[in-house]
Amino acid sequence: MVSPGPARPAGRTSAVELPDEWYVACLSSELGRRRPLARTVLSRPLCLFRDGDGRVAAVVDRCPHRNVPLSLGRLRDGLLQCRYHGWRFDRTGACRAVPGLCADDPGGRGRSAEALQCVEQDGFVWVFPGAAAAPPGGPPFRFPCVDQPGYDTVRRSLVSAGTVHAVAENALDVPHTAFLHGGLFRGAGRAPVEIEVVVRSGPDRIEAEYIGEPRPPGVAGRLLAPGGGVVQHWDRFLLPSIAQVEYRLEDNHLLVTSALTPVTPSQTRLHSAVTFSLRVPHAVIKALVPPLAALIFAQDARILRRQAETIERFGGEQFASTEIDVLGQGILRLLRRAERGEPGTDPSDELAPERRLFMRL
Amino acid sequence: MVSPGPARPAGRTSAVELPDEWYVACLSSELGRRRPLARTVLSRPLCLFRDGDGRVAAVVDRCPHRNVPLSLGRLRDGLLQCRYHGWRFDRTGACRAVPGLCADDPGGRGRSAEALQCVEQDGFVWVFPGAAAAPPGGPPFRFPCVDQPGYDTVRRSLVSAGTVHAVAENALDVPHTAFLHGGLFRGAGRAPVEIEVVVRSGPDRIEAEYIGEPRPPGVAGRLLAPGGGVVQHWDRFLLPSIAQVEYRLEDNHLLVTSALTPVTPSQTRLHSAVTFSLRVPHAVIKALVPPLAALIFAQDARILRRQAETIERFGGEQFASTEIDVLGQGILRLLRRAERGEPGTDPSDELAPERRLFMRL
Amino acid sequence: MVSPGPARPAGRTSAVELPDEWYVACLSSELGRRRPLARTVLSRPLCLFRDGDGRVAAVVDRCPHRNVPLSLGRLRDGLLQCRYHGWRFDRTGACRAVPGLCADDPGGRGRSAEALQCVEQDGFVWVFPGAAAAPPGGPPFRFPCVDQPGYDTVRRSLVSAGTVHAVAENALDVPHTAFLHGGLFRGAGRAPVEIEVVVRSGPDRIEAEYIGEPRPPGVAGRLLAPGGGVVQHWDRFLLPSIAQVEYRLEDNHLLVTSALTPVTPSQTRLHSAVTFSLRVPHAVIKALVPPLAALIFAQDARILRRQAETIERFGGEQFASTEIDVLGQGILRLLRRAERGEPGTDPSDELAPERRLFMRL
Repeated sequence: MVSPGPARPAGRTSAVELPDEWYVACLSSELGRRRPLARTVLSRPLCLFRDGDGRVAAVVDRCPHRNVPLSLGRLRDGLLQCRYHGWRFDRTGACRAVPGLCADDPGGRGRSAEALQCVEQDGFVWVFPGAAAAPPGGPPFRFPCVDQPGYDTVRRSLVSAGTVHAVAENALDVPHTAFLHGGLFRGAGRAPVEIEVVVRSGPDRIEAEYIGEPRPPGVAGRLLAPGGGVVQHWDRFLLPSIAQVEYRLEDNHLLVTSALTPVTPSQTRLHSAVTFSLRVPHAVIKALVPPLAALIFAQDARILRRQAETIERFGGEQFASTEIDVLGQGILRLLRRAERGEPGTDPSDELAPERRLFMRL
Repeated sequence: MVSPGPARPAGRTSAVELPDEWYVACLSSELGRRRPLARTVLSRPLCLFRDGDGRVAAVVDRCPHRNVPLSLGRLRDGLLQCRYHGWRFDRTGACRAVPGLCADDPGGRGRSAEALQCVEQDGFVWVFPGAAAAPPGGPPFRFPCVDQPGYDTVRRSLVSAGTVHAVAENALDVPHTAFLHGGLFRGAGRAPVEIEVVVRSGPDRIEAEYIGEPRPPGVAGRLLAPGGGVVQHWDRFLLPSIAQVEYRLEDNHLLVTSALTPVTPSQTRLHSAVTFSLRVPHAVIKALVPPLAALIFAQDARILRRQAETIERFGGEQFASTEIDVLGQGILRLLRRAERGEPGTDPSDELAPERRLFMRL
Repeated sequence: MVSPGPARPAGRTSAVELPDEWYVACLSSELGRRRPLARTVLSRPLCLFRDGDGRVAAVVDRCPHRNVPLSLGRLRDGLLQCRYHGWRFDRTGACRAVPGLCADDPGGRGRSAEALQCVEQDGFVWVFPGAAAAPPGGPPFRFPCVDQPGYDTVRRSLVSAGTVHAVAENALDVPHTAFLHGGLFRGAGRAPVEIEVVVRSGPDRIEAEYIGEPRPPGVAGRLLAPGGGVVQHWDRFLLPSIAQVEYRLEDNHLLVTSALTPVTPSQTRLHSAVTFSLRVPHAVIKALVPPLAALIFAQDARILRRQAETIERFGGEQFASTEIDVLGQGILRLLRRAERGEPGTDPSDELAPERRLFMRL
C-alpha cells in the first residue's frame, strides 16, 4: 500500500495513526453523478465517485497509466474516465476501457486503480484505508437520531489545521467558549456559577457530564431553551475519532456529532451532523445553524491553525493542563492505547465514574 | 562547476541528466540589446545577453563580487553591468570595470563571471552547460526547413512541469489528443478507424509512422488539408531532446520541432518551431498558430503539472503502458543509454523497423 | 531554552550567532497598551507588550497551556491575556489567572510563559535572548545625540533579507550608492574625484573616514549642506550589530544609526534612528526623511533579497572583493571573533589606523 504525504511530525505530538478504522471522506451531498471528488484521508489522496447505480466508490487518486489524478476526470456511462487518455475504471478500480487500443483486453496487469472499501450511511461516505480485508471493528459508526422521527439534521464538512486530538479537544472544550466565542454561547450576561462535572470513561470512550448548568446565556442557549431552565449537557469522545456534544432540556434535544478525519498528521477534516428535536420551529433552526456554525468554526479554525503553526515552529507540543481541561488528556490516552493495539476493558461494561470536579461557568 | 538547484528526484523517475549536450536557452527574439535575460538550464541559473556586436553570450547568473543575479543589470557599452555596484563583464565573463576602484586593474583573480559556450542559429540561442572544452557531439541541432524557400516558421518558448521524458512523450503521443484536445485536432466528427503504425529506431532516435490516417477532422486537419485526403504523419524523438511531429499531404508540409530544455529535473522548457509550406495562405497560418498553440499547450501544461505533482506526492512514477503508448518507453531507453554513455549502433545505419501495431483513431 | 526556527544555512555563510547580546525588538512607538506585538529575534518568536504601568515586557510567543501564540491576545488589567482560553500572564511570564478554574492557584508548575529581559531606552525596546542571568556586556547600546539639545530624531523599523553582515555591509557601503541609488545621494551632476579613506579599528568596532569628499551632489547632500563645502564623513560598525553613518559640515551634524537584529540567520530587521542638528528647518527634514528613507530602503531591500536568494540557490556565498569594499571583511572578522568568544584588544585603546586607500567618487 502506497502511503504518500507527510510523515508523523517530529517532536512531541498528539498525532496518532489508526489506519484500520473507518473514516468519513465526504458528505453524501458532496458527491454527485457527473464529477468525482478529490479528498485526502490519512495522507492518501483519494478519488471518490458514484457508479451508474449511484453506489459510492473510492480509488487512490492516481491513474495507473501515467499517474494523473483520476479526480481530474469525469463520470461516463457509470465509469470513472481519466482526463489524460480516457482510460475508464469501475468501482472496483478495474480498467474497463483504453481508447484507441485494438490489440487486447483493457483490463491487463497493472492497469487497475487501487480501490478502498467504501460505505454510504446517515448522509456520509465512509472509507476504510486499512490493509485488512475486513475492517476489524465492523461497520462504521452510526450517527445517532438522524433517522428518528421528530428529528432533523444539518450536515457540514470543514477542514482545519491540527491533529485529530487537537481538533477533538477543541470541539469538546468548555472553557474556551467564553473567550473565543464570547457572546455566542457563553460568557455574556450573567455572573459565573460553579458547575459540577462528572467524568466517566469506558474502553472506547470518555465523557463529561455537566450538572446543574443554567441555560447558556448566548444565542445557542436561547434556541435550545427559550424559556430558560437547567440543561443536561454531555461532551463525549468515541474511538477512533467521534466528538459529540449533547444537550437536553425537558423534551428539547440537540446533538452535535463530528466524525474527525485525519487528512495529514497535522490537518483534520470535520464532518458534522447537527441533529435536533426542539420546540423552536425546525425551519428556524435549519436557517440559523449554517451561519452560526460557520462563525464558530471560523474562530476555532483560526486558533487551531495558529496553534499548529506554533507547535511546528517550536518543534513539538509542550502543553500544561489544569483539571478544567476536562477531556483532552483522556482522549489522548484512548488514542495512544488504540495505536498500540491494547485492548480496553470489556466494552459491555458500564462507563466507570472517573473523577468529579468543579468549573466556574 | 557549480551545480545548484534541486537534485534528481527520489523514487522511480524518468529524469535523466545529460550535461554534455547543447540546449536551447531562449528564442533569438527574446534577447534584446538593452537588458539581459534570466534562464535556468539543467538547474543552473544563467544570464543571457548580447554584446555590442549583437553576439549572444551566457554567464552563470551570479555576480562574482556580492552574488547578486547579473540578470538584474543592464547592457552598457556592450558590457553586462551588475545592478548592485556596477561591475561590468564582457561575453567571456571577464570583469572589465569596477566603478570607484583606483588602485588596480579591474580584471583581478576571482572577478570573472563563469561563461558558457553559446551559439545562435535558426532563431534560437543554444548553450552548452557541460564541462568539456569542446562539445563532444559537435555543433547544435539544426531545425529543418526553416531556411528553405517557400517555408515560414512561427517560434514559441513555453515552460511546463515534467521531466524531459514526460514532456516529450506528451508532445509525441497520439491517443491523448482525442480526449485532452477534443475537437481541436482529433476525436470529433467521424467514426474511428484502425491505423497502422510502424516504429523505427536508430542510434540517436526513434520514430513512428502513421500509415493511412484520414485527414484529421479538427481545426488543425482543415488547415493542413482543406480538401481532405490521406496524410503522411511521423512522430520523432532525437537525442538529447528534440520532439518532432511531421505531416505531409501532397505538397503541403508541416513540421513542429521542439527542443526540450531541462530547467530542473522536473521542469522543462519547450522551444518550438512550427515550420510550414502549405497551400492555405501563410498569413492565415501565422495568425492562427499562436492562439491555437497556446490553447493546446495550456491543456497539456495543466495535465503535465498535475502528473508531476501526483508523482511527487506518491514518491515516484508508477506507469502501466499498452502498445499504443508508442514512443514513451523507447524514448526513455534512448535517454538512459545516453546517460550511461553507451554507444548506439552506427549512426550511418538506416533506421531499423522495430515493430508494427494498430491504433484506433 | 527553546531555539526554534531555521538553523544556520549550509555552505559558506556570513551568518554569525551571538545570542548573549542585546537586540532591538521594536520601536517604542510600535508597542501600545492594548495589543501585544509579535517579533522574531534570533529565530525565537517573541510576544512584546506593556504592563499596566507601561513597562515593556517580552515573553516567548507560545502560551504554556495549548501553544497558541500569545501575541494573538489582548492586554487586560495590565496582564497579557491568551486568545484561546484567557489565561493571563504578568511581565515576568507568571500565570495570574485561569478562567473557570476553581480548585487551585493559577500559578502552578509549567504554567509560566518564558520571559526575556527587556529594556526600553532612546525610543527602542531591547531584549536579551541569551541564557546568562546578567548580560555579560552590561546594558544595551545608547543611540548617540538623541537626547542632546538641538537634535531631532526620526525612527524607523524595517525588515530585509540577508544576514546581519550583508545588511551592515550594504548600509556602510559607499560604491553602490552611485548605481543603486543613482541621483539620490551620489553619482549625478559632477565628475568623480579621488577621495582618501582611512580605516581604523578597535576591539569592538571598525570605522572608515572619508577625507576631502565634496558635498554629495544628490538630494541628501543638499539637505546636509545647502551651501556646498567639504563634508566630514564616517562609516562605522560596532559589535554586535550597530551600523552608523555620520556626516559633519561646519555645525551641521547628521547621524544614521541602525541597530540590526537577526530575525533568522538570513533575515535581518533594521531599527534606525536618523538623528540631526542642521541649519535647514527640522520640520522640513522630518517631512523628507520618511519618504526618502523608504525609497532608498526599497532599492536596497530588493538587492539584498535577490542576493540572499542567489546565495541560497548556489548553496553558499562566494564573494570577490577589492580594496574599495572598505568595511565588509573587517566587519566579518569582528563578528567571527565575537562568536568564538575571543577577546579584542583593550577597549580603552584608541582606534588604531589600519590602512589608507583611495576611492573615485
